Amino acid sequence: MIKITLPDGSVKEFTQGATPMDVALSISEGLARNVISASFDGKTIETTTPLTTDGSLILYTWNDSEGKKAFWHSTSHVMAQALEELYPGIKLTIGPAIDNGFYYDVDFGEHKITDADFKKIEDRVLEISREKHNFKMRSATKAEALAFYKGNEYKTELIENLEDGTITFCDHSTFTDLCRGGHIPNTGIIKAMKILSVAGAYWRGDEKNKQLTRVYGISFPKQKDLTEYLQMLEEAKKRDHRKLGKELELFHFSQKVGQGLPLWLPKGAALRDRLEQFLKKAQKKAGYEQVVTPHIGQKELYVTSGHYAKYGADSFQPIHTPAEGEEFLLKPMNCPHHCEIYNAKPWSYKDLPKRYAEFGTVYRYEQSGELHGLTRVRGFTQDDAHIFCTPDQLDAEFKNVIDLVLYVFGSLGFENFTAQVSVRDLSNPDKYIGSVENWEKAENAIISAAKDKGLNYVIESGEAAFYGPKLDFMVKDALGRSWQLGTIQVDYNLPERFDLTYKGSDNELHRPVMIHRAPFGSMERFVAILLEHTAGNFPIWLMPEQAIILSLSEKYEKYAQKVLNLLENHEIRAQIDNRNETIGKKIREAEVQKFPFMLIVGEEEEKNGTISVRRHGDSGKSNQSMTIEEFAKLVQEEIDKTLKQF
Amino acid sequence: MIKITLPDGSVKEFTQGATPMDVALSISEGLARNVISASFDGKTIETTTPLTTDGSLILYTWNDSEGKKAFWHSTSHVMAQALEELYPGIKLTIGPAIDNGFYYDVDFGEHKITDADFKKIEDRVLEISREKHNFKMRSATKAEALAFYKGNEYKTELIENLEDGTITFCDHSTFTDLCRGGHIPNTGIIKAMKILSVAGAYWRGDEKNKQLTRVYGISFPKQKDLTEYLQMLEEAKKRDHRKLGKELELFHFSQKVGQGLPLWLPKGAALRDRLEQFLKKAQKKAGYEQVVTPHIGQKELYVTSGHYAKYGADSFQPIHTPAEGEEFLLKPMNCPHHCEIYNAKPWSYKDLPKRYAEFGTVYRYEQSGELHGLTRVRGFTQDDAHIFCTPDQLDAEFKNVIDLVLYVFGSLGFENFTAQVSVRDLSNPDKYIGSVENWEKAENAIISAAKDKGLNYVIESGEAAFYGPKLDFMVKDALGRSWQLGTIQVDYNLPERFDLTYKGSDNELHRPVMIHRAPFGSMERFVAILLEHTAGNFPIWLMPEQAIILSLSEKYEKYAQKVLNLLENHEIRAQIDNRNETIGKKIREAEVQKFPFMLIVGEEEEKNGTISVRRHGDSGKSNQSMTIEEFAKLVQEEIDKTLKQF
Repeated sequence: MIKITLPDGSVKEFTQGATPMDVALSISEGLARNVISASFDGKTIETTTPLTTDGSLILYTWNDSEGKKAFWHSTSHVMAQALEELYPGIKLTIGPAIDNGFYYDVDFGEHKITDADFKKIEDRVLEISREKHNFKMRSATKAEALAFYKGNEYKTELIENLEDGTITFCDHSTFTDLCRGGHIPNTGIIKAMKILSVAGAYWRGDEKNKQLTRVYGISFPKQKDLTEYLQMLEEAKKRDHRKLGKELELFHFSQKVGQGLPLWLPKGAALRDRLEQFLKKAQKKAGYEQVVTPHIGQKELYVTSGHYAKYGADSFQPIHTPAEGEEFLLKPMNCPHHCEIYNAKPWSYKDLPKRYAEFGTVYRYEQSGELHGLTRVRGFTQDDAHIFCTPDQLDAEFKNVIDLVLYVFGSLGFENFTAQVSVRDLSNPDKYIGSVENWEKAENAIISAAKDKGLNYVIESGEAAFYGPKLDFMVKDALGRSWQLGTIQVDYNLPERFDLTYKGSDNELHRPVMIHRAPFGSMERFVAILLEHTAGNFPIWLMPEQAIILSLSEKYEKYAQKVLNLLENHEIRAQIDNRNETIGKKIREAEVQKFPFMLIVGEEEEKNGTISVRRHGDSGKSNQSMTIEEFAKLVQEEIDKTLKQF
Repeated sequence: MIKITLPDGSVKEFTQGATPMDVALSISEGLARNVISASFDGKTIETTTPLTTDGSLILYTWNDSEGKKAFWHSTSHVMAQALEELYPGIKLTIGPAIDNGFYYDVDFGEHKITDADFKKIEDRVLEISREKHNFKMRSATKAEALAFYKGNEYKTELIENLEDGTITFCDHSTFTDLCRGGHIPNTGIIKAMKILSVAGAYWRGDEKNKQLTRVYGISFPKQKDLTEYLQMLEEAKKRDHRKLGKELELFHFSQKVGQGLPLWLPKGAALRDRLEQFLKKAQKKAGYEQVVTPHIGQKELYVTSGHYAKYGADSFQPIHTPAEGEEFLLKPMNCPHHCEIYNAKPWSYKDLPKRYAEFGTVYRYEQSGELHGLTRVRGFTQDDAHIFCTPDQLDAEFKNVIDLVLYVFGSLGFENFTAQVSVRDLSNPDKYIGSVENWEKAENAIISAAKDKGLNYVIESGEAAFYGPKLDFMVKDALGRSWQLGTIQVDYNLPERFDLTYKGSDNELHRPVMIHRAPFGSMERFVAILLEHTAGNFPIWLMPEQAIILSLSEKYEKYAQKVLNLLENHEIRAQIDNRNETIGKKIREAEVQKFPFMLIVGEEEEKNGTISVRRHGDSGKSNQSMTIEEFAKLVQEEIDKTLKQF
């Protein structure tokens, strides 16, 4: 008999050789129907792998990311089979599961594959799937493996480089692939499959190698899931922040300035400023003080902080001076600067906490291939702050930060989020800096704060950084996609490295604790996510311009200007479109630009001192005539719906 | 006879050999009494130099900077004589006039010079001066010069390096010095002289050379001028922005972050933010749009702009990437980025002018010896903007910018300023880029704007940059010191280099004109000047905190907090001092921190719902009891005195 420990901590006995599927069956038939993958003592195995020793077993279903991974990896085998059948003589290379589906890199030789071919491949994949083939792993010698792949230089290279000497194949139907394992029980549960795209990809990602064809696919256990996914993709494409950013004239990338370095155009800069002012206002109420620090620092500063050892080689290289032999670095983080601000004078426990906030622009090198719109850039502005407090203040400070983060999310329409508390790995205490007492204080502070604030949180052991525990927020956007936004981290390390102190009530010097936090994360990434979440229809308080005044003809320019001035008195942001264009064209363009309100002015409006108000997305003819005062009230009501007092 | 042209354009005839003094006498005896120096065809000469050809003569008095230069240079000779007499065997090196006085670098050998010695040197200088010695220039051969300075390795080195072969000496009294000329008529007009300080200085500024003693002095034609100057120095010391910046906790320099890289502490950052918001608000009204650009750019960007050729070697060196071989530079200017923003889309003449503004932080290397508080730093934030307009719009745009600059100066209490219009050197037309027509348009636009706006301006021919004419503002601070603040420059160069275009009404592409402008210049330098101008007593609208609530004891904490909340409702910035200290100590500290108002709260105030108001610098006991509402009204009245609507 062997003892199998399950994730809930329960231990069950089984005869040696029982499989994960047997374990699932012993729990419930329903579970067995849904189990698609398993891991044993942290290693991925098949659901059919016989268990021979005591150990911890996790069973995965489609709802687990591990389950999806096995599902997609298995579909990749089936697609490879279909491709080999349809394009004889092609050479397969690698075909892993990715975050959303899988791909297979293929040397198609003389064959060409286009969008027109996708259907027949998908049909063949589903045909094979319906035949309910089992995936069977088997070992092979290197000689056998090389013989099997004679003529396929890619697989040959992979086999030559397998260093641990264990070579395994996976068979299903008539198809065999070099494989590490991790499959679903059989192909029958693949009910829907779609080839998403093909793209060029160099063998091993090296542009000196041959270019292969990467075939991207995705699959689901239900047709409905695929339909929904494709709809989501379609919607996501419309909401792509790079596309919206261009349409709304928010930001621009110039090849001359450099890739990954956004230029914020007037409307984008205004949007960003509004977000900054919004957070600044809340932070002021929460007792933060703004500071301003330079974008470079001496290399020594980052040697002290430890950032140089960690990032130095992989980031922008040091800046030398023409004389005096000094070396500077673009700052990758604001914390060292804020530590030096703390160190500018001595502190007493009565002065703490000090909360230094800065919209600090930092620079980190990313390979050009990794850059993506505003979500992955080389320079970005963190809504950074560092709280320096006594260990006893940590509890209250943490709660205050959570309040602020929740206020930010709420005001911006992110209502669906979860939290992750990352704590120590208790079995590995040497990994962490700081006293056990302080760690316990900090972890308890975070957990009790998360509980008190009613967060939907999970605790992840061993996920804490070496310098302290943390709390991360995962936010779901309108399309159901998850983004990591907002992080709160406790830090015992930098106070040591910068020798930060305060005088306690005992008149002795003590170390403060530091909290790093950024509700937005970075202005760039946040604006990108907000764009995709709202499709550019921001909460009205945030819109760079809340209304556009459309004149029926150039004759009404003067009245339009008068309306604009009145709106400004009411602090409503607006602009005028007084071009010599048809009103239809002006409305269409204003719709693309996402103005929440279009205010049409013509003869009648001028005569009556009114405006004709049309809402964004309102395709009917229901323009409402009202005075500026009435309109101002309407706008304020809209604002009050989302923007609460902090 | 020779023809002498005077600065007013008039031409007078004199016999060959007439001296500048003769010319002065021919105009008026008063002028002759005041003339202390002269230049002929742009070359400095003595007032006693015989004029032998036709040419242009300028006569200088004490009121001209050239006159002061001659005065101080001459005094330097006299001081050198006194030093040689008092410290036999010392070796003289160089002794130039500087902006405020002069210095002489001396190798004192075995002698030591301290503050205690200053008096006897000054007395001897004045004694010699009273003897009314003439300064007489004479030529010498290299051999004569070397013989005269046998044993003085410094002068020997200077003589060896004189490349043009002309060696001249200047004699007065018993003293002779190697000298290029440019003296006052005789020593008799030196009526007051003071040694200001001594400092170490390496020979030729090279720390590998011997350290000499630099003796700083200043002199005046009237004792009263010296007295005033010394008072001004004393007051300037009290107002030194580095001292005030520390006392008021505005900024801090950390050796770890790096010299010349200011860290803005909370109060300083708030002050700076207030200035930025003030300017942003006015700029918004003036039709500017804020943009945000990165602090680095590809080296190529600055090659295109021409900045790399001009500054590359002398500034921070290129930043390399760990892969991909890219090169970036810290931006020394914002203009290339703004040109790229302009280039993000095509423009029609109807869209212009575009006015892009950014508080853009730029980085320029300065030798550590050149750094000085916030006035000379390595990273600073320009209140930058670039206007892109058609040549026809230049006139109106220039006037708008002048209005903005005057509004800024007025709101900050700088009332004493002059302007300088820098135009082409018409005799050297090849030096300039852009058409003659556009230059004329631009110069006329500037001059007519300066005239229209009633500026007290001078026109300086040949002082324009190669890329366009400009207007600079010189501001006098409370101590009468002049600072260059605010510059407006026309630029025909960058539009060419970045190939900027707009479609004209003729449907053809045209080049826009660019205006660079910065009313503050830089936030760092401006705050420094403002600190020294106001001694930290900023206009009340600008004070980071307008009031401090001083509790008579900790008992009144709750009431103090209530007062603070009420003040916040009135948008008055305040803080509480609720420490367990005497009210006397709290007031003294609040005075140092320059709080405009101290609001004392105790039992009576709590009972009556009032505050006891004391003004900064009010040494009497005239605290006034009033309600919060009354106080809010008082503050608003104070604000309205300086801060007008733009």
